[in-house]
Amino acid sequence: MPEIHAGRRAALRALLTEAEPPLDALLVTDLVNIRYLTGFTGSNAALLVHAGGEADTVFCTDGRYRTQAAAEVPDLERVITRPSALELAGRAAGRRETYLRTGFESQHVTVEAHDQLAERAEGVELVRAPGLVERLRAVKDDTEVAALRRACAAADRALAELVERGGLRPGRTEREVARDLESRMLDHGSTGPSFDTIVAAGAHSAIPHHRPTDAVLASGDFVKLDFGAVVDGYHSDMTRMVVLGEPAAWQRELYDLVLRAQAEGSAAVRPSADVTAVDRAAREVIERAGHGEEFGHGLGHGVGLQVHEAPSLAATGAGTLSAGMAVTVEPGVYLAGRGGVRIEDTLVVRDGSPEVLTLSPKELVVV
Amino acid sequence: MPEIHAGRRAALRALLTEAEPPLDALLVTDLVNIRYLTGFTGSNAALLVHAGGEADTVFCTDGRYRTQAAAEVPDLERVITRPSALELAGRAAGRRETYLRTGFESQHVTVEAHDQLAERAEGVELVRAPGLVERLRAVKDDTEVAALRRACAAADRALAELVERGGLRPGRTEREVARDLESRMLDHGSTGPSFDTIVAAGAHSAIPHHRPTDAVLASGDFVKLDFGAVVDGYHSDMTRMVVLGEPAAWQRELYDLVLRAQAEGSAAVRPSADVTAVDRAAREVIERAGHGEEFGHGLGHGVGLQVHEAPSLAATGAGTLSAGMAVTVEPGVYLAGRGGVRIEDTLVVRDGSPEVLTLSPKELVVV
Repeated sequence: MPEIHAGRRAALRALLTEAEPPLDALLVTDLVNIRYLTGFTGSNAALLVHAGGEADTVFCTDGRYRTQAAAEVPDLERVITRPSALELAGRAAGRRETYLRTGFESQHVTVEAHDQLAERAEGVELVRAPGLVERLRAVKDDTEVAALRRACAAADRALAELVERGGLRPGRTEREVARDLESRMLDHGSTGPSFDTIVAAGAHSAIPHHRPTDAVLASGDFVKLDFGAVVDGYHSDMTRMVVLGEPAAWQRELYDLVLRAQAEGSAAVRPSADVTAVDRAAREVIERAGHGEEFGHGLGHGVGLQVHEAPSLAATGAGTLSAGMAVTVEPGVYLAGRGGVRIEDTLVVRDGSPEVLTLSPKELVVV
Repeated sequence: MPEIHAGRRAALRALLTEAEPPLDALLVTDLVNIRYLTGFTGSNAALLVHAGGEADTVFCTDGRYRTQAAAEVPDLERVITRPSALELAGRAAGRRETYLRTGFESQHVTVEAHDQLAERAEGVELVRAPGLVERLRAVKDDTEVAALRRACAAADRALAELVERGGLRPGRTEREVARDLESRMLDHGSTGPSFDTIVAAGAHSAIPHHRPTDAVLASGDFVKLDFGAVVDGYHSDMTRMVVLGEPAAWQRELYDLVLRAQAEGSAAVRPSADVTAVDRAAREVIERAGHGEEFGHGLGHGVGLQVHEAPSLAATGAGTLSAGMAVTVEPGVYLAGRGGVRIEDTLVVRDGSPEVLTLSPKELVVV
């Protein structure tokens, strides 16, 4: 859909023009940002977006992607050469009156790469311009939300099947369960896991980012499942908890506490909410219960073409939410050596209540 | 095995001391390099290696990895805080007489991150020091070669099973074959695919980096399989060709040509060989046959903790091979719209002949 990408480049041009002082162009080198602005999905490219319009906007990739680029980026001038970023820097230098002040993605470009760019772009002023495309990406359009919905649905279905078909039972290893989940997500349209699937049984559930091992699921275990699917490049992210057999009192209590925190956090997700206030809404529930020290990470993060992107819902975050942002809300409490609980949804900021994309039930799953 | 990591840090210290002028320390921020130097496998860390020894060498990660870091990095002072690199820059500034000239990985550190580091490390001279750890990583020790061997074996077995059990047959989609291969690699000890598995049937085989689609394998098709396994963090990389049914004359011819080029390239892999000469050895075979224009990529690359690492066997590469380097040799000829052939092994540079790690037969597989 070229018109969608053209619309995004137009939105970027507005940011270039608003910059103080205005930028003539932006040299985009981050591949995810390039995909967002052009639809290109290959592994090497650069894009020079001119503030004046499409005529002086140029895309560059190498010979391996000639055919793919023609199909994916039909609407821009394409240069086929390698290395792409240097080529476009050279182009800018060749017409420096047009590209006089050219921004670059200083949060992505390395010091070495910048040295080379600066040499090649002699006469052009290369200006630090971090996060411009990321700012646009934070707010999702309908196409993007639809892709996120499909990704979340693939994960939902995989989990439902896993539970229904007895995939969670004493004797299975964490690794087997992770593989089963990932395989079922592929069955439901995922092109791959959104990130390394977390399956953490028993005391392992107290490790926030546990990697599946050959540890065997046992009766009475808490099992934490944190996983996601990728559909059309968009990532889902969800955490659910399972208990094998009748939950102990402490497990119920911990679960209910985190569930309340998750509900409070989700309720705080609305346009204009300060990201730190959303984090705070969930965190206060946990702090009041005396477990503040055991919730050692932020409340959530944006999701989209990357599984972690802007905004950050954390005490260290900055800014406010806008309608259309897609974020996770994932409080957790981790009791070292014993077990932990995290409950996580992916949701979209809407006027009024947020739209929850991960629809798996949030009662504690008892199998 | 802490002694292995200590040995690598000692080798790095020798490079710091040899630098002109010598460096007092190196701030390592690339996670793969940190894994190589310490064994740490988490997603956030920094390491300040002092040239004088272990006493002033400090490792830093955040609270999520406290337990993991204690297990994986038992032999270094550990600081638990976030953000890690800034913390260590601050440490260096606090004892600037010890860390006066501190190198940083300028090929990894972004311009933004460097601004922050420079502010935090006030009074310390931050010196561009690209590629020091990568230089060490290029030459593999016995433990690393053993891991590469296991990764290559997982891929070999997966392919053998796929062929034996009829996994390559008309009617299957590229995507199904890719998933089958990846699943079999997991069965044989892989923790995941080394990179996005390439299965390219018919005319798709002419696309060097084709992604599997729902296209169906048909009788008479060339099928290109480029895939790898990861074992203990080490990556294998292999390409094999299959024909469904009796190969046509042009297919045999093209295959034999690339096979000869692959043999010439492999024969040129030896200590002290210039990387451009190795590329040339294979390329000349293809050029003499009039297909030089259709071999549009380098001959190979290093493999190890990353699937692409130093050295680069290409006309644009620089330097010579050393015993213990692990590299791919992967010439290809791509006839647009018709079909292409690539044949690729992973091998280790040895005195005399290289050691081939990917042992799948290289006759054209006819199924």
